[in-house]
Amino acid sequence: MSIVVQKYGGTSVGTPEKIKNIAEKIISRKEKGDGVVVVVSAMGKTTDLLLEMSKGITKNPHKRELDMLMSTGEQVTITLVAMALHERGHDCISLTGFQAGIQTQGYHTKARIHDIDIEKVNSHLKEGKIVVVAGFQGMNENGDITTLGRGGSDTTAVALAAKLGCSCEIYTDVDGIYTVDPRVFSTARKLDYISYEEMLEMASLGAGVMETRAVEMGQKFNVPIYVALSMEDWPGTYIKGMDMTMEKRAITGLSISDKDLMVTVNHIKYDTKNIAYIFNTLAKMDVNVDMISQTAPVNGFVNLSFTAPKLDENTILNIMKDLKGKLNDIEVEIERDITKLSVVGIGMRSQSGVAAKMFDIFAENDISFKQVTTSEIRISYTISTKDRNKAVEVVATEFDL
Amino acid sequence: MSIVVQKYGGTSVGTPEKIKNIAEKIISRKEKGDGVVVVVSAMGKTTDLLLEMSKGITKNPHKRELDMLMSTGEQVTITLVAMALHERGHDCISLTGFQAGIQTQGYHTKARIHDIDIEKVNSHLKEGKIVVVAGFQGMNENGDITTLGRGGSDTTAVALAAKLGCSCEIYTDVDGIYTVDPRVFSTARKLDYISYEEMLEMASLGAGVMETRAVEMGQKFNVPIYVALSMEDWPGTYIKGMDMTMEKRAITGLSISDKDLMVTVNHIKYDTKNIAYIFNTLAKMDVNVDMISQTAPVNGFVNLSFTAPKLDENTILNIMKDLKGKLNDIEVEIERDITKLSVVGIGMRSQSGVAAKMFDIFAENDISFKQVTTSEIRISYTISTKDRNKAVEVVATEFDL
Repeated sequence: MSIVVQKYGGTSVGTPEKIKNIAEKIISRKEKGDGVVVVVSAMGKTTDLLLEMSKGITKNPHKRELDMLMSTGEQVTITLVAMALHERGHDCISLTGFQAGIQTQGYHTKARIHDIDIEKVNSHLKEGKIVVVAGFQGMNENGDITTLGRGGSDTTAVALAAKLGCSCEIYTDVDGIYTVDPRVFSTARKLDYISYEEMLEMASLGAGVMETRAVEMGQKFNVPIYVALSMEDWPGTYIKGMDMTMEKRAITGLSISDKDLMVTVNHIKYDTKNIAYIFNTLAKMDVNVDMISQTAPVNGFVNLSFTAPKLDENTILNIMKDLKGKLNDIEVEIERDITKLSVVGIGMRSQSGVAAKMFDIFAENDISFKQVTTSEIRISYTISTKDRNKAVEVVATEFDL
Repeated sequence: MSIVVQKYGGTSVGTPEKIKNIAEKIISRKEKGDGVVVVVSAMGKTTDLLLEMSKGITKNPHKRELDMLMSTGEQVTITLVAMALHERGHDCISLTGFQAGIQTQGYHTKARIHDIDIEKVNSHLKEGKIVVVAGFQGMNENGDITTLGRGGSDTTAVALAAKLGCSCEIYTDVDGIYTVDPRVFSTARKLDYISYEEMLEMASLGAGVMETRAVEMGQKFNVPIYVALSMEDWPGTYIKGMDMTMEKRAITGLSISDKDLMVTVNHIKYDTKNIAYIFNTLAKMDVNVDMISQTAPVNGFVNLSFTAPKLDENTILNIMKDLKGKLNDIEVEIERDITKLSVVGIGMRSQSGVAAKMFDIFAENDISFKQVTTSEIRISYTISTKDRNKAVEVVATEFDL
């Protein structure tokens, strides 16, 4: 029996009608003879509604309790999907993260999957059941319910596929991976294939389709991931290992993100301990720092800039207040109207001149940037949000995306 | 450390404001030095909303899935109560039925508590935490989430108190047990004490305050139960074992219930196997039959009447259809406009003449009844619902309730 893991996101299960639709889709796959594991998220706005409820009680909910609250969202969806499958005469069973054997470690609201006792899912598959698993959640070693944070349901799906040794299909409200976000650049092209590495860079840079961690897990365990529309039967995009059949493009895609802010810390007494202290403190508070740039020391002082999620602004402000106490002299500046623009492509490894061409394009079009960082397969810029659309237009056109 | 189990029902936790209020109430108890275990139901109309969601998918939801769906209701409440306690600086932990060690057996949607691994709750109490447990739910031997059916949260609370060897306080929207439902008979008196036996009869007869099974469990394990208002500090009613200090009243209370219908099966070929078959079939489908009356056989045929919950009407109709196939000749009649009226009192054991007085009252006031059944401490009548208020008035007045 070949097995497939299908994941349906929140908008795909947002109403009873939609749930009935995906039930049909699941059944048609099952009837082809495949063993089907379905992973679902909370329905549409459920997560927001639950958060709102907690805000009626406290502004600062206890994180263990918040996890316990949020996990009810997916639990509701799995039961409704299972009811719809039963109604259509198909044997199935819904499982919470815990019941599906998903063991987690780490912080509440941001837990990681440590392992999956896959026998629990396997035994139901062997009995011919469709197995419907709650995404985004698991249980830690203390028996507490945990949630996986952003992209958690995708991660659940890919992790299950890794353990089952099968491929993973992510059904969502976009029909695949595009060279550029089509909402920003309407003539963007849909990719048939993208490598894990490219997708990772695109995802970490804000291409909203999939979160980094799910793609990382796919890469680690070589799980083929297929991203497609949940409601239509159009071809989507395969995310898989690089192979020779893939076209060698210099640039595969362009990502933009408005979700970060830029923190600049000026006049830091130059001492690697000081810099390490800053990033250790941020890491301890689980703030995901992305683009880091540091100037060479002048008169024994350095300036430092980094980007981090706008969502973490309060945490960052607290850390910076604390830093000012520890490292006198420093000045902290936060810029909120910034956009990260990145171009990504495995071809960059073998084709030189991408960076040079980018600087040319920016200069010709009078777009200034605040930071630039590069990796083997991407170049990222921090620009003002007001320049965003113009920059996307000219870069996408030049690289024929 | 003395321990108490407090249970708060759905209306007591219906809004964030109410949850904050009960948090204060819980804390004031905790600050007296008691170990406090809190059992809560789903918020207000949550259960209805979840049922409605399932109806968007199917008219006949799979019962295992329905349990999994319904159990999210209490899970939401425990997290909000725990958040409110944390917010006020009190260490606490929320536990689902499973996490609290509640093991169940029997049918989905109507499971029974088989045992409680009380060490899970005890270890948190020992650490000084307030333990907030989801009522109404547990986990069966297959690892499936189950719900306990009507009165489930009360049962959870009393069962926990039994295991902890402490008393149980049921906070609700009525301020105690009355001789007669005060909504029907406004001058009814509140009882300070009532025995388990009397309460059992009252509850099984429709006194809405507590379900039979919770009182039964209280009686079995001798758990003192205190029923009082959740929002005010008025004295409530103690339900406890009979002792010498209790007043010997002939009649403690009068109960009425409009929740049942009466089924009459006429012209059954007289054979104890036939009668047994009827009640076995009803029991198999988990229909709770209450008042049973059967006439003596005439020409080898008997007539039979019984009352059962209106909620089970569809099940009963199916069973009766099936019965007609098996036992030809029979005629089935269902009456929906009936009320069960019962008088209950331990004093009946020692005081004769209650039955005679009741028949007198009914005759004098021209109230006809369809069935009458008696037990050691109660007499119940099935009357037309149109006669209900008049009957309550005259009986309550005659017995000074």
